[in-house]
Amino acid sequence: MSTSHAIRHVRITPIAFRDPPLLNAAGIHEPWALRSIIEIETAAGLVGINESYGDLPMLEALAKAAPALQGLSPWSLNEMEARVRALVTPPKQTTSEFLTQQVSLAPGTHVSKTVAKVISAFEVAMMDLQGQMANAPVVDLLGGAARDRVPYSAYLFYKYAEHIEKPYAPDAWGEALKPEQLVAQARRMIDQYGFQSIKLKAGALPPEQEAAGILALAQAFPGTPLRIDPNGNWTVETSLKIVQQLHGVLEYYEDPAPRLDGMAAVARECDVPLATNMVVTDFAEFRRNADMGCPVKIVLSDHHYWGGLRATQQLSMLCRTFDLGLSMHSNSHLGISLVAMTHLCASVPLLTYACDTHYPWQDEEIVTGGRLKFENGSLRVPTGPGLGVTIDREALARLHDNYLRCGIRNRDDLGQMKKYDPAFTGVQPRF
Amino acid sequence: MSTSHAIRHVRITPIAFRDPPLLNAAGIHEPWALRSIIEIETAAGLVGINESYGDLPMLEALAKAAPALQGLSPWSLNEMEARVRALVTPPKQTTSEFLTQQVSLAPGTHVSKTVAKVISAFEVAMMDLQGQMANAPVVDLLGGAARDRVPYSAYLFYKYAEHIEKPYAPDAWGEALKPEQLVAQARRMIDQYGFQSIKLKAGALPPEQEAAGILALAQAFPGTPLRIDPNGNWTVETSLKIVQQLHGVLEYYEDPAPRLDGMAAVARECDVPLATNMVVTDFAEFRRNADMGCPVKIVLSDHHYWGGLRATQQLSMLCRTFDLGLSMHSNSHLGISLVAMTHLCASVPLLTYACDTHYPWQDEEIVTGGRLKFENGSLRVPTGPGLGVTIDREALARLHDNYLRCGIRNRDDLGQMKKYDPAFTGVQPRF
Repeated sequence: MSTSHAIRHVRITPIAFRDPPLLNAAGIHEPWALRSIIEIETAAGLVGINESYGDLPMLEALAKAAPALQGLSPWSLNEMEARVRALVTPPKQTTSEFLTQQVSLAPGTHVSKTVAKVISAFEVAMMDLQGQMANAPVVDLLGGAARDRVPYSAYLFYKYAEHIEKPYAPDAWGEALKPEQLVAQARRMIDQYGFQSIKLKAGALPPEQEAAGILALAQAFPGTPLRIDPNGNWTVETSLKIVQQLHGVLEYYEDPAPRLDGMAAVARECDVPLATNMVVTDFAEFRRNADMGCPVKIVLSDHHYWGGLRATQQLSMLCRTFDLGLSMHSNSHLGISLVAMTHLCASVPLLTYACDTHYPWQDEEIVTGGRLKFENGSLRVPTGPGLGVTIDREALARLHDNYLRCGIRNRDDLGQMKKYDPAFTGVQPRF
Repeated sequence: MSTSHAIRHVRITPIAFRDPPLLNAAGIHEPWALRSIIEIETAAGLVGINESYGDLPMLEALAKAAPALQGLSPWSLNEMEARVRALVTPPKQTTSEFLTQQVSLAPGTHVSKTVAKVISAFEVAMMDLQGQMANAPVVDLLGGAARDRVPYSAYLFYKYAEHIEKPYAPDAWGEALKPEQLVAQARRMIDQYGFQSIKLKAGALPPEQEAAGILALAQAFPGTPLRIDPNGNWTVETSLKIVQQLHGVLEYYEDPAPRLDGMAAVARECDVPLATNMVVTDFAEFRRNADMGCPVKIVLSDHHYWGGLRATQQLSMLCRTFDLGLSMHSNSHLGISLVAMTHLCASVPLLTYACDTHYPWQDEEIVTGGRLKFENGSLRVPTGPGLGVTIDREALARLHDNYLRCGIRNRDDLGQMKKYDPAFTGVQPRF
């Protein structure tokens, strides 16, 4: 390697963007979602980019790990991993309310994932550099495209019309608490993006109401694959009762009951395949599921906390070996994460399910050219070098300014919900 | 991708090289070992190379699959795999004497491996092209070096002084049937190559004699990790009896008894970790071992039949997930295979055992510059683009000429042994 390709600078910029009042098992989204924007620059001036979590512990971990990259070749992913492991020791696990309530919903938040998250944050930016150096898109560095576009699903949420603090004008989606409002939300999202699968974030309203929502969707969109995700907020008994009501309409049943033993208890009595992003969130948990005879049949991966694009490809071989399906989980994100997911998913032959994405819920963007365009619910895999997108620096400045002003430093859906309902405890399973 | 990088030509050249009369469970090596040399040329004239099996069914499979590469980008490994799968349907499995006797010894021979073998044969050559296009060594395309040199082990064989047909002058190694001859062989190999681990191919002589060989090695090379590989030619009872005699001297115990159930029976009574290249030879068998609670603790991989360099990296994540060790198996081979192994092993952090190689048993070479040089038993990872080696065309012509003349078209250690001992049946386990 010529030394001009050695890494010289690392910049981590926290950003915040508007996020609607979306309901979930833990509470409700705050008005601002946080991300970090990672830029890795070589001595020759090439810049590789990425997007990851933006909560304070993640920013601290990224700052602590950044020196690991100094002088490294963008090809040296194994060396980067070893250095990051040495620098970022996971802090001792706490059992604060914050952790227990939030973590299950957003496994990327858990401290045990810190090393994998930092590795992923750097890996994608380094692969963006590799692609620029090799004049090849990231998908090619991952083995080439198994498909030229990646399908995403319509990710529906129960929601309020606006945030309790009214920090900005209400979003265009309106309230969604009743079945007909949910159908209207789906209609609007499908009209706009062309999605051909529907996922409902559940675990927020009483289960019977959510089941009624799914049945209304099944009637309004016949033949469209449907999924429901109560985020482990239902007991085993409730999970089994509701899945009976939904007989014949679910493509898969995502995290109805909490913990692997809860999922296993549901699996024993239920013929709809179970999917998870809560009980198989790393390789150790993968093994636990395998050792139990695989009660969970579909892993919803997320390269942001599984250790990167290559780790997710390795996960796909584990899934193939154990006859599991694979799809992708999402948190609130912008275009860099979406493009990285698209390169990854295009390179994984096993990944035949439409992936989750929160993207329609955002109205801001950070990549040059603005919001990415879906065609029939799919994104085309970029063909330019690296990730194939660059940062709109004006947008970055604006979104960083959001961060500085918004006052949010850690995601706290529970605390936010208490503003609406002081009696809300978030204890799970609630139903 | 510019069309000038599209693949235009594929050349498969069978070669044969001198191979000593090495004894094993199936019989004895024939005077000539077969390999295929793969060359993949782009429209712009770049040539990617590789080395693989050279038996007739493999040559036929490679010829059948070669059209899959036409017009493909060297980056399109997933598309290549899909096309190869479509073109190369594994022939129906036969149960001929040839298959049952040979396959266990050389899992690469089994017809079920045909698709994985062809994919690997093409993948490495395509990655050689990728490296040339990206100006990066193959190890970098695999995530970069986790180590800058890869250790190999001294691979000892019981052997006769010369082949029964006397097709060429006897090799320099002489006879090795007694413990002192084995120690002399080890001394010579270690003096010449600097190896720091020793593996004994066993299952050829009565087990007590082979145990005496290991004990003599333990005395002559104190502290050097020792391994013994009877290739499943011992009963469970014999395996347990012998491992007791070798108490405290084995690093791992490779394939003492046949089949996974045999290995599991040994594992239950034995505290030396079991290694295999016979009962975990693909991902389905990996799962079977996991489902049984992992009686086999170390997988001896071989990218030639596991589906390539990337598949072996994926295997390494499976091994990490199930707390298994990983090392590498070898068949008779030349420098291209050795270099590909070296790139691969350097890129797999888990691969801490010294790898097997038959390389010292060969005295011919096909790469420009001749025989590769070991330093203290290790090979440095090449730093040039791609594999970092090229074909010596004069050597290729000479070794292809060997192939045309030698008359061998399929490896047949059993048939060869019958020339020495007409009563030899090869039925396993023999002891």
